[in-house]
Amino acid sequence: MIQPWTTESSTTLVADEWLTLRADTCRTEEGRVVEPYYVIEAPTWVSVLALTPDRRAVLVDEYRHGAGVVGLGLPGGVMDPEDPSPMDAAARELREETGYVPGQIVEVGRGWANWASHSNEVVYFLATDCVRVGEPDDGEELEVVLHDLDAVLRGGMLQQSFHQANLHLALERMRA
Amino acid sequence: MIQPWTTESSTTLVADEWLTLRADTCRTEEGRVVEPYYVIEAPTWVSVLALTPDRRAVLVDEYRHGAGVVGLGLPGGVMDPEDPSPMDAAARELREETGYVPGQIVEVGRGWANWASHSNEVVYFLATDCVRVGEPDDGEELEVVLHDLDAVLRGGMLQQSFHQANLHLALERMRA
Repeated sequence: MIQPWTTESSTTLVADEWLTLRADTCRTEEGRVVEPYYVIEAPTWVSVLALTPDRRAVLVDEYRHGAGVVGLGLPGGVMDPEDPSPMDAAARELREETGYVPGQIVEVGRGWANWASHSNEVVYFLATDCVRVGEPDDGEELEVVLHDLDAVLRGGMLQQSFHQANLHLALERMRA
Repeated sequence: MIQPWTTESSTTLVADEWLTLRADTCRTEEGRVVEPYYVIEAPTWVSVLALTPDRRAVLVDEYRHGAGVVGLGLPGGVMDPEDPSPMDAAARELREETGYVPGQIVEVGRGWANWASHSNEVVYFLATDCVRVGEPDDGEELEVVLHDLDAVLRGGMLQQSFHQANLHLALERMRA
Protein backbone atom coordinates (compact mmCIF):
# COMPACT_ATOMS: atom_id res chain seq x y z
CA MET A 1 0.00 0.00 0.00
CA ILE A 2 1.55 3.29 -1.11
CA GLN A 3 1.71 5.87 1.66
CA PRO A 4 1.81 9.66 1.42
CA TRP A 5 5.03 11.43 2.33
CA THR A 6 5.33 13.48 5.50
CA THR A 7 6.16 17.15 5.01
CA GLU A 8 8.75 18.05 7.63
CA SER A 9 9.24 21.68 6.69
CA SER A 10 8.12 24.09 4.01
CA THR A 11 9.52 27.41 2.77
CA THR A 12 7.52 29.86 0.69
CA LEU A 13 9.69 31.12 -2.18
CA VAL A 14 7.19 33.27 -4.09
CA ALA A 15 3.80 34.49 -2.94
CA ASP A 16 2.17 37.19 -5.00
CA GLU A 17 -0.98 37.66 -7.05
CA TRP A 18 0.38 35.42 -9.82
CA LEU A 19 2.27 32.60 -8.17
CA THR A 20 2.51 30.80 -4.84
CA LEU A 21 5.57 28.54 -4.81
CA ARG A 22 6.88 26.59 -1.85
CA ALA A 23 9.86 24.25 -1.35
CA ASP A 24 9.09 21.31 0.93
CA THR A 25 11.34 18.93 2.80
CA CYS A 26 9.58 15.57 2.78
CA ARG A 27 10.19 12.13 4.21
CA THR A 28 8.95 8.97 2.51
CA GLU A 29 7.58 5.98 4.40
CA GLU A 30 10.94 4.25 3.95
CA GLY A 31 12.66 7.23 5.57
CA ARG A 32 14.19 8.76 2.45
CA VAL A 33 14.40 12.57 2.61
CA VAL A 34 13.19 14.42 -0.50
CA GLU A 35 14.25 18.06 -0.73
CA PRO A 36 13.64 20.47 -2.20
CA TYR A 37 10.25 19.38 -3.55
CA TYR A 38 8.64 22.37 -5.26
CA VAL A 39 4.87 22.79 -5.12
CA ILE A 40 2.76 25.46 -6.77
CA GLU A 41 -0.36 26.24 -4.77
CA ALA A 42 -3.17 27.31 -7.05
CA PRO A 43 -6.93 27.81 -6.81
CA THR A 44 -9.30 25.56 -8.75
CA TRP A 45 -9.25 26.08 -12.50
CA VAL A 46 -12.26 25.65 -14.79
CA SER A 47 -12.72 25.09 -18.50
CA VAL A 48 -15.81 24.68 -20.61
CA LEU A 49 -16.74 23.16 -23.95
CA ALA A 50 -19.41 25.68 -24.97
CA LEU A 51 -21.70 24.74 -27.86
CA THR A 52 -24.19 26.86 -29.76
CA PRO A 53 -27.60 25.38 -30.69
CA ASP A 54 -26.15 24.47 -34.13
CA ARG A 55 -23.29 22.49 -32.54
CA ARG A 56 -20.50 24.99 -33.02
CA ALA A 57 -17.83 25.24 -30.31
CA VAL A 58 -17.09 28.70 -28.90
CA LEU A 59 -13.29 28.92 -28.74
CA VAL A 60 -10.80 31.63 -27.85
CA ASP A 61 -7.66 32.43 -29.84
CA GLU A 62 -5.10 33.89 -27.47
CA TYR A 63 -1.40 34.31 -26.86
CA ARG A 64 -0.10 31.77 -24.30
CA HIS A 65 3.17 33.04 -22.92
CA GLY A 66 4.26 29.87 -21.08
CA ALA A 67 4.48 27.99 -24.37
CA GLY A 68 5.11 31.14 -26.43
CA VAL A 69 2.37 30.35 -28.92
CA VAL A 70 -0.92 31.77 -30.16
CA GLY A 71 -3.47 29.00 -29.96
CA LEU A 72 -7.15 28.11 -29.88
CA GLY A 73 -8.47 26.97 -26.55
CA LEU A 74 -11.60 26.46 -24.52
CA PRO A 75 -12.86 29.37 -22.45
CA GLY A 76 -11.89 29.07 -18.81
CA GLY A 77 -9.62 30.32 -16.10
CA VAL A 78 -9.15 30.59 -12.38
CA MET A 79 -11.98 30.27 -9.87
CA ASP A 80 -12.33 33.52 -7.88
CA PRO A 81 -13.03 33.58 -4.14
CA GLU A 82 -16.32 35.30 -5.06
CA ASP A 83 -17.47 32.45 -7.32
CA PRO A 84 -20.03 30.36 -5.39
CA SER A 85 -19.00 27.18 -7.24
CA PRO A 86 -16.75 25.96 -10.04
CA MET A 87 -19.83 25.97 -12.29
CA ASP A 88 -20.42 29.65 -11.57
CA ALA A 89 -16.75 30.30 -12.30
CA ALA A 90 -17.04 28.51 -15.65
CA ALA A 91 -20.15 30.47 -16.64
CA ARG A 92 -18.48 33.73 -15.56
CA GLU A 93 -15.31 33.00 -17.55
CA LEU A 94 -17.38 32.04 -20.59
CA ARG A 95 -19.28 35.32 -20.40
CA GLU A 96 -16.17 37.44 -19.79
CA GLU A 97 -14.04 35.83 -22.49
CA THR A 98 -16.61 35.31 -25.22
CA GLY A 99 -19.83 37.23 -24.52
CA TYR A 100 -21.77 33.92 -24.57
CA VAL A 101 -24.04 32.55 -21.85
CA PRO A 102 -25.12 28.91 -21.60
CA GLY A 103 -28.65 27.51 -21.87
CA GLN A 104 -27.51 24.54 -19.75
CA ILE A 105 -24.19 23.82 -18.09
CA VAL A 106 -23.08 20.56 -16.48
CA GLU A 107 -19.86 19.30 -14.89
CA VAL A 108 -18.40 16.44 -16.92
CA GLY A 109 -15.35 15.56 -14.83
CA ARG A 110 -12.29 16.74 -12.98
CA GLY A 111 -8.57 16.27 -13.30
CA TRP A 112 -5.50 17.36 -11.39
CA ALA A 113 -3.83 20.28 -13.14
CA ASN A 114 -0.56 18.44 -12.54
CA TRP A 115 -0.45 16.30 -9.46
CA ALA A 116 3.34 16.17 -9.41
CA SER A 117 3.72 19.93 -9.01
CA HIS A 118 0.35 21.68 -8.51
CA SER A 119 -2.13 21.51 -5.66
CA ASN A 120 -5.22 22.21 -7.73
CA GLU A 121 -7.81 20.52 -9.88
CA VAL A 122 -9.34 21.58 -13.17
CA VAL A 123 -13.12 21.16 -13.31
CA TYR A 124 -14.48 20.44 -16.77
CA PHE A 125 -17.86 21.61 -18.05
CA LEU A 126 -20.15 21.17 -21.01
CA ALA A 127 -22.34 24.18 -21.81
CA THR A 128 -25.06 23.77 -24.41
CA ASP A 129 -27.48 26.10 -26.21
CA CYS A 130 -25.02 28.94 -25.70
CA VAL A 131 -26.12 32.32 -27.06
CA ARG A 132 -24.20 35.53 -27.55
CA VAL A 133 -25.40 38.34 -25.32
CA GLY A 134 -22.53 40.80 -25.68
CA GLU A 135 -18.87 41.38 -26.32
CA PRO A 136 -15.91 39.94 -24.41
CA ASP A 137 -14.97 42.11 -21.44
CA ASP A 138 -12.59 44.99 -21.96
CA GLY A 139 -9.09 43.82 -21.24
CA GLU A 140 -9.60 40.35 -22.73
CA GLU A 141 -6.89 40.19 -25.40
CA LEU A 142 -8.34 37.42 -27.50
CA GLU A 143 -10.50 36.58 -30.48
CA VAL A 144 -13.67 34.53 -30.23
CA VAL A 145 -13.76 31.86 -32.92
CA LEU A 146 -16.58 29.39 -33.67
CA HIS A 147 -15.87 26.01 -35.23
CA ASP A 148 -18.14 23.07 -35.95
CA LEU A 149 -17.64 20.48 -33.23
CA ASP A 150 -16.81 17.87 -35.86
CA ALA A 151 -13.98 20.07 -37.13
CA VAL A 152 -12.63 20.50 -33.59
CA LEU A 153 -12.52 16.71 -33.29
CA ARG A 154 -11.08 16.01 -36.71
CA GLY A 155 -8.45 18.68 -36.69
CA GLY A 156 -6.61 18.04 -33.44
CA MET A 157 -7.47 21.71 -32.94
CA LEU A 158 -7.04 21.81 -29.17
CA GLN A 159 -3.40 21.81 -28.06
CA GLN A 160 -3.77 22.39 -24.31
CA SER A 161 -3.73 19.04 -22.51
CA PHE A 162 -6.58 19.68 -20.08
CA HIS A 163 -8.74 21.16 -22.84
CA GLN A 164 -8.29 17.86 -24.71
CA ALA A 165 -9.45 16.01 -21.58
CA ASN A 166 -12.43 18.37 -21.19
CA LEU A 167 -13.42 17.89 -24.83
CA HIS A 168 -13.40 14.10 -24.64
CA LEU A 169 -15.20 13.88 -21.32
CA ALA A 170 -17.86 16.27 -22.64
CA LEU A 171 -18.27 14.11 -25.74
CA GLU A 172 -18.70 11.02 -23.59
CA ARG A 173 -21.42 12.83 -21.68
CA MET A 174 -23.18 13.85 -24.90
CA ARG A 175 -23.11 10.26 -26.16
CA ALA A 176 -24.42 8.85 -22.87
CA MET B 1 -4.98 38.55 -35.64
CA ILE B 2 -3.61 37.82 -32.18
CA GLN B 3 0.10 38.62 -31.85
CA PRO B 4 2.67 37.17 -29.45
CA TRP B 5 4.01 39.37 -26.68
CA THR B 6 7.55 40.70 -26.75
CA THR B 7 9.76 39.65 -23.83
CA GLU B 8 11.71 42.73 -22.78
CA SER B 9 13.63 41.19 -19.91
CA SER B 10 13.78 37.93 -18.02
CA THR B 11 15.12 37.00 -14.58
CA THR B 12 15.82 33.43 -13.51
CA LEU B 13 14.48 32.86 -10.00
CA VAL B 14 15.17 29.16 -9.52
CA ALA B 15 17.41 26.92 -11.62
CA ASP B 16 18.27 23.54 -10.19
CA GLU B 17 17.77 19.90 -11.08
CA TRP B 18 14.07 20.09 -10.17
CA LEU B 19 12.80 23.47 -11.32
CA THR B 20 13.67 26.24 -13.75
CA LEU B 21 11.54 29.30 -13.04
CA ARG B 22 11.86 32.70 -14.68
CA ALA B 23 10.03 35.99 -14.30
CA ASP B 24 9.54 37.86 -17.57
CA THR B 25 8.68 41.45 -18.32
CA CYS B 26 6.54 41.39 -21.44
CA ARG B 27 4.89 43.94 -23.71
CA THR B 28 1.68 43.22 -25.58
CA GLU B 29 1.01 44.41 -29.12
CA GLU B 30 -1.12 47.24 -27.67
CA GLY B 31 1.83 48.33 -25.53
CA ARG B 32 0.59 47.05 -22.18
CA VAL B 33 3.41 45.91 -19.89
CA VAL B 34 2.90 42.54 -18.19
CA GLU B 35 5.20 41.83 -15.22
CA PRO B 36 6.07 39.62 -13.57
CA TYR B 37 4.95 36.80 -15.85
CA TYR B 38 6.26 33.54 -14.39
CA VAL B 39 7.30 30.74 -16.73
CA ILE B 40 8.48 27.26 -15.82
CA GLU B 41 10.93 25.87 -18.38
CA ALA B 42 10.65 22.12 -18.56
CA PRO B 43 11.81 19.36 -20.91
CA THR B 44 9.30 17.33 -22.90
CA TRP B 45 7.16 14.98 -20.83
CA VAL B 46 5.83 11.62 -22.03
CA SER B 47 3.03 9.34 -20.95
CA VAL B 48 1.83 6.01 -22.29
CA LEU B 49 -1.34 3.94 -22.24
CA ALA B 50 0.26 0.49 -22.08
CA LEU B 51 -1.95 -2.50 -22.82
CA THR B 52 -1.26 -6.20 -22.37
CA PRO B 53 -2.37 -8.67 -25.08
CA ASP B 54 -5.58 -9.29 -23.06
CA ARG B 55 -6.43 -5.55 -23.04
CA ARG B 56 -5.44 -4.73 -19.49
CA ALA B 57 -3.90 -1.32 -18.83
CA VAL B 58 -0.58 -1.22 -16.97
CA LEU B 59 -0.95 1.53 -14.36
CA VAL B 60 1.18 2.86 -11.53
CA ASP B 61 -0.11 3.68 -8.06
CA GLU B 62 2.10 6.38 -6.59
CA TYR B 63 2.17 9.28 -4.15
CA ARG B 64 1.82 12.64 -5.96
CA HIS B 65 3.11 15.35 -3.67
CA GLY B 66 1.86 18.35 -5.65
CA ALA B 67 -1.74 17.30 -5.07
CA GLY B 68 -0.93 15.40 -1.86
CA VAL B 69 -2.71 12.25 -3.01
CA VAL B 70 -1.94 8.63 -3.80
CA GLY B 71 -3.39 7.92 -7.21
CA LEU B 72 -3.35 5.62 -10.22
CA GLY B 73 -1.72 7.02 -13.31
CA LEU B 74 -0.20 6.12 -16.63
CA PRO B 75 3.51 5.35 -16.72
CA GLY B 76 5.56 8.29 -17.93
CA GLY B 77 7.90 11.04 -16.95
CA VAL B 78 10.48 13.48 -18.19
CA MET B 79 12.43 13.01 -21.43
CA ASP B 80 16.16 12.72 -20.68
CA PRO B 81 18.83 14.38 -22.85
CA GLU B 82 20.02 10.83 -23.62
CA ASP B 83 16.64 9.72 -25.00
CA PRO B 84 16.86 9.73 -28.82
CA SER B 85 13.13 10.58 -29.13
CA PRO B 86 9.99 11.03 -27.03
CA MET B 87 9.02 7.48 -28.05
CA ASP B 88 12.28 6.13 -26.64
CA ALA B 89 11.63 8.11 -23.46
CA ALA B 90 8.14 6.62 -23.14
CA ALA B 91 9.44 3.06 -23.64
CA ARG B 92 12.22 3.69 -21.11
CA GLU B 93 9.82 5.10 -18.50
CA LEU B 94 7.44 2.18 -19.04
CA ARG B 95 10.29 -0.29 -18.48
CA GLU B 96 11.70 1.53 -15.45
CA GLU B 97 8.36 2.10 -13.73
CA THR B 98 6.59 -1.16 -14.49
CA GLY B 99 9.00 -3.78 -15.85
CA TYR B 100 6.91 -4.01 -19.03
CA VAL B 101 8.11 -3.57 -22.61
CA PRO B 102 5.82 -2.87 -25.57
CA GLY B 103 5.24 -5.06 -28.61
CA GLN B 104 4.30 -1.92 -30.55
CA ILE B 105 4.33 1.72 -29.54
CA VAL B 106 2.86 4.66 -31.45
CA GLU B 107 2.46 8.38 -30.76
CA VAL B 108 -1.23 9.31 -30.52
CA GLY B 109 -0.98 13.06 -29.98
CA ARG B 110 0.58 15.92 -28.08
CA GLY B 111 -0.61 18.62 -25.75
CA TRP B 112 0.95 21.55 -23.94
CA ALA B 113 1.61 20.66 -20.29
CA ASN B 114 0.11 24.07 -19.46
CA TRP B 115 0.61 26.73 -22.08
CA ALA B 116 -0.10 29.55 -19.63
CA SER B 117 2.83 28.67 -17.37
CA HIS B 118 4.99 25.89 -18.83
CA SER B 119 7.21 25.82 -21.90
CA ASN B 120 6.86 22.11 -22.60
CA GLU B 121 4.65 19.59 -24.32
CA VAL B 122 3.46 16.17 -23.19
CA VAL B 123 3.71 13.52 -25.92
CA TYR B 124 1.10 10.77 -25.64
CA PHE B 125 1.68 7.15 -26.62
CA LEU B 126 -0.23 3.91 -27.05
CA ALA B 127 1.78 0.77 -26.37
CA THR B 128 0.20 -2.58 -27.22
CA ASP B 129 1.11 -6.23 -26.65
CA CYS B 130 3.09 -5.20 -23.59
CA VAL B 131 4.84 -8.01 -21.74
CA ARG B 132 6.49 -8.10 -18.35
CA VAL B 133 10.24 -8.71 -18.54
CA GLY B 134 11.28 -7.76 -15.01
CA GLU B 135 10.64 -5.67 -11.93
CA PRO B 136 10.37 -1.89 -11.68
CA ASP B 137 13.77 -0.27 -11.17
CA ASP B 138 15.10 0.09 -7.66
CA GLY B 139 14.12 3.48 -6.35
CA GLU B 140 10.72 3.52 -8.03
CA GLU B 141 8.35 4.00 -5.09
CA LEU B 142 5.18 2.74 -6.69
CA GLU B 143 2.97 -0.26 -7.24
CA VAL B 144 2.17 -1.67 -10.66
CA VAL B 145 -1.55 -2.32 -11.04
CA LEU B 146 -3.34 -3.89 -14.01
CA HIS B 147 -6.96 -3.04 -14.79
CA ASP B 148 -9.19 -4.04 -17.68
CA LEU B 149 -9.32 -1.14 -20.12
CA ASP B 150 -13.12 -1.12 -19.87
CA ALA B 151 -12.85 -0.61 -16.10
CA VAL B 152 -10.41 2.28 -16.61
CA LEU B 153 -12.96 3.92 -18.87
CA ARG B 154 -16.03 3.22 -16.75
CA GLY B 155 -14.49 4.15 -13.46
CA GLY B 156 -13.11 7.62 -14.09
CA MET B 157 -9.99 5.95 -12.76
CA LEU B 158 -7.45 8.42 -14.15
CA GLN B 159 -7.34 11.71 -12.24
CA GLN B 160 -4.34 13.42 -13.87
CA SER B 161 -5.57 15.72 -16.64
CA PHE B 162 -3.00 14.85 -19.28
CA HIS B 163 -3.41 11.13 -18.58
CA GLN B 164 -7.12 11.58 -19.34
CA ALA B 165 -6.18 13.24 -22.64
CA ASN B 166 -3.69 10.45 -23.44
CA LEU B 167 -6.31 7.78 -22.69
CA HIS B 168 -8.93 9.29 -24.97
CA LEU B 169 -6.56 10.01 -27.84
CA ALA B 170 -5.26 6.43 -27.61
CA LEU B 171 -8.82 5.11 -27.72
CA GLU B 172 -9.56 7.20 -30.79
CA ARG B 173 -6.51 5.67 -32.45
CA MET B 174 -7.62 2.16 -31.51
CA ARG B 175 -11.09 2.79 -32.99
CA ALA B 176 -9.68 4.25 -36.24
